[in-house]
Amino acid sequence: MNIEISKKFAGIKPSAVREILKTTNDPEMIAFAGGSPATEAFPCDAVRKISNEILTENAQSALVYGVSEGYEPLRRNVADWLLKYEGINSENDSIIITSGGTQVMDLAARVLLSEGDAVICEDPSFVGSLNCFRSHGCGVVGVPIDSDGMNINSLEQAVKSNKNAKAIYTIPNFQNPGGTTLSLEKRKQMYRIAKENHLVIIEDNPYGSLRVSGKNVSAIKSFDSESLVVYAGSFSKVLAPGIRVAYAAVPKQIAGAFTIAKQVSDVHTGVLNQMIVSRWLSEYDIDSHLESIRRIYRKKLDLMCSCLDEYCADFISYVRPEGGLFIWAKLDDGIDMLQYVKKLIDKKVAVVPGSAFMCNDAAKCNHIRLNFSTPSEVDIIKGVKIMADTAKQ
Amino acid sequence: MNIEISKKFAGIKPSAVREILKTTNDPEMIAFAGGSPATEAFPCDAVRKISNEILTENAQSALVYGVSEGYEPLRRNVADWLLKYEGINSENDSIIITSGGTQVMDLAARVLLSEGDAVICEDPSFVGSLNCFRSHGCGVVGVPIDSDGMNINSLEQAVKSNKNAKAIYTIPNFQNPGGTTLSLEKRKQMYRIAKENHLVIIEDNPYGSLRVSGKNVSAIKSFDSESLVVYAGSFSKVLAPGIRVAYAAVPKQIAGAFTIAKQVSDVHTGVLNQMIVSRWLSEYDIDSHLESIRRIYRKKLDLMCSCLDEYCADFISYVRPEGGLFIWAKLDDGIDMLQYVKKLIDKKVAVVPGSAFMCNDAAKCNHIRLNFSTPSEVDIIKGVKIMADTAKQ
Repeated sequence: MNIEISKKFAGIKPSAVREILKTTNDPEMIAFAGGSPATEAFPCDAVRKISNEILTENAQSALVYGVSEGYEPLRRNVADWLLKYEGINSENDSIIITSGGTQVMDLAARVLLSEGDAVICEDPSFVGSLNCFRSHGCGVVGVPIDSDGMNINSLEQAVKSNKNAKAIYTIPNFQNPGGTTLSLEKRKQMYRIAKENHLVIIEDNPYGSLRVSGKNVSAIKSFDSESLVVYAGSFSKVLAPGIRVAYAAVPKQIAGAFTIAKQVSDVHTGVLNQMIVSRWLSEYDIDSHLESIRRIYRKKLDLMCSCLDEYCADFISYVRPEGGLFIWAKLDDGIDMLQYVKKLIDKKVAVVPGSAFMCNDAAKCNHIRLNFSTPSEVDIIKGVKIMADTAKQ
Repeated sequence: MNIEISKKFAGIKPSAVREILKTTNDPEMIAFAGGSPATEAFPCDAVRKISNEILTENAQSALVYGVSEGYEPLRRNVADWLLKYEGINSENDSIIITSGGTQVMDLAARVLLSEGDAVICEDPSFVGSLNCFRSHGCGVVGVPIDSDGMNINSLEQAVKSNKNAKAIYTIPNFQNPGGTTLSLEKRKQMYRIAKENHLVIIEDNPYGSLRVSGKNVSAIKSFDSESLVVYAGSFSKVLAPGIRVAYAAVPKQIAGAFTIAKQVSDVHTGVLNQMIVSRWLSEYDIDSHLESIRRIYRKKLDLMCSCLDEYCADFISYVRPEGGLFIWAKLDDGIDMLQYVKKLIDKKVAVVPGSAFMCNDAAKCNHIRLNFSTPSEVDIIKGVKIMADTAKQ
């Protein structure tokens, strides 16, 4: 039988990132395409020890159904985390544990958006979130980014000309793929615009703890006196992504709807997974873990930047990010970006074509996204040299 | 700010089951309300051993991002399982690993349904699935069930009078909450009707392995020559629910869309979770595990039925299920069901009001759903006696 795909779904393409990631199963491929945190930063020993303790002490409790809001001790850990690291007092919010950070965007879309609504996004932005909004039949309206984040004049323009906009989606720290951090001044302006236009802000902060230089900027959620921010955080980048534990801090008035959305999505996040993260947060020295993974990221970022500066300065320009996982590299106009990406894959270097991240994916884009956290230091040097050689051919 | 909830979401109530489950955090509460498999049936030692092995041998591989379709060895395990236990040759299907069984219905709804479409369901049916369809702005059309499953005349009628119907949703084995099993003859009729009317069948089979009497009935998917069945299976009831590993077998032509739906929902199911299940399936004696958990369920079902027959025969009638987790108990017309449920909770026995499972939850319903897998044998006896005492007052 020829099965018809739902209208809202029919237009979505698979994520180019994840499709390219499949090619990275090839062990010879140098992985500049992924979005994975550095595997050497995973606290493997702690996870093994904790998992074994939980399954020895009371395995049944880790294997039964949990509640949809999440494992209560972990919800408290998250509230503590938000206060300590992000200055967010979540008294007026509910913490809901999710299966990875993307699920926060999905739950938000379900609860807040209807088909035909629009979400104003940074352009470029994380394709997983863009596709998520699209999959709910919503439009994504792109606003260009400057080196200090979303261009505010363009944001005001976008709000004015898109009366169907219901939310602003932002990755404020070390944006994916742009690498930029939204300045405090712009965060406040964005908040004002949201408030004046009755828009929700979806603040997606998976990379916030991976700052390797510069100063922390306050989360928008930290000054959310009007309760209009849905905040998404994740342990994918500070612990490990395969464990799929993340969280939302949502205004109390929509917490009930969020919980139902979680129920109908996947009932609850894996209990063992939540218990592992909770015990890790409670019993381990997280400050020194964060310091040690930042050292790893700082070193890799510095290395990739030095290599780019040394070998690729004549055809690549970029704004050096202060953290995160990505460098958003602009190719010289003379280079055909898609051709270049294909040639690189032939030479066993996988990068993501920037067009994958554009709100309008037919828009002209001469960027590529480079990930510096996944490859080894040896591969960073080797890969960037191949990038230089390939451009010269 | 007053945040507006999306139209498709605004009308959904929290699952009465999960709300009542929260009361069961009270350790004195006798848990006839849950839907949890018997905790004594969990292979805890195996999970502990396997988890420790995986995290010792190669923790990083269990903690990195996985692909959206699922962990490849587990997908092969599932194909083998389907062939061995369900007679399903999944050659024309793709196996997609999901975070629990409910997520299959959610992915199917995203891919196949648009707002305003309808799904034809058994009435009563699993409230998690009904709410899932509702949360996508779809209607649920109830078809009454006989002791051998959905009434086929009513199904034909429902198909005729609901031109917006896109799918039939069925729980063929030990239906939740009805306890009934769809006969082979009716499965074939349902298939014919789906084919003639260009409908997808969503076959949800979480309980199939928990048969304690009678003979297996072939899955609808096993004779799906037209590729119109989306099949959902789960390890929640044969291994444990907290691990959140389930799967879909979907016709190849919609597998790409399913994978994208999975990507935008939660990217992929926890890798450690998938690896644990895969190794368990590969290295353990699953036949004898299934035999041993069936012994547990058989004993508990027999016990609850004997108790109901001994103490409650004057006000409760039911069709004895051949497996699964639930007895669908009809109260005498003289009893006010909701009042009775409330009185039981006061006396520390939690049961679910049947109305929670009705497609039209304002419909008259004098049933309650009793779960026999969660409570201990002592509690089954004690709880049913309290049910009898309460009815007499």
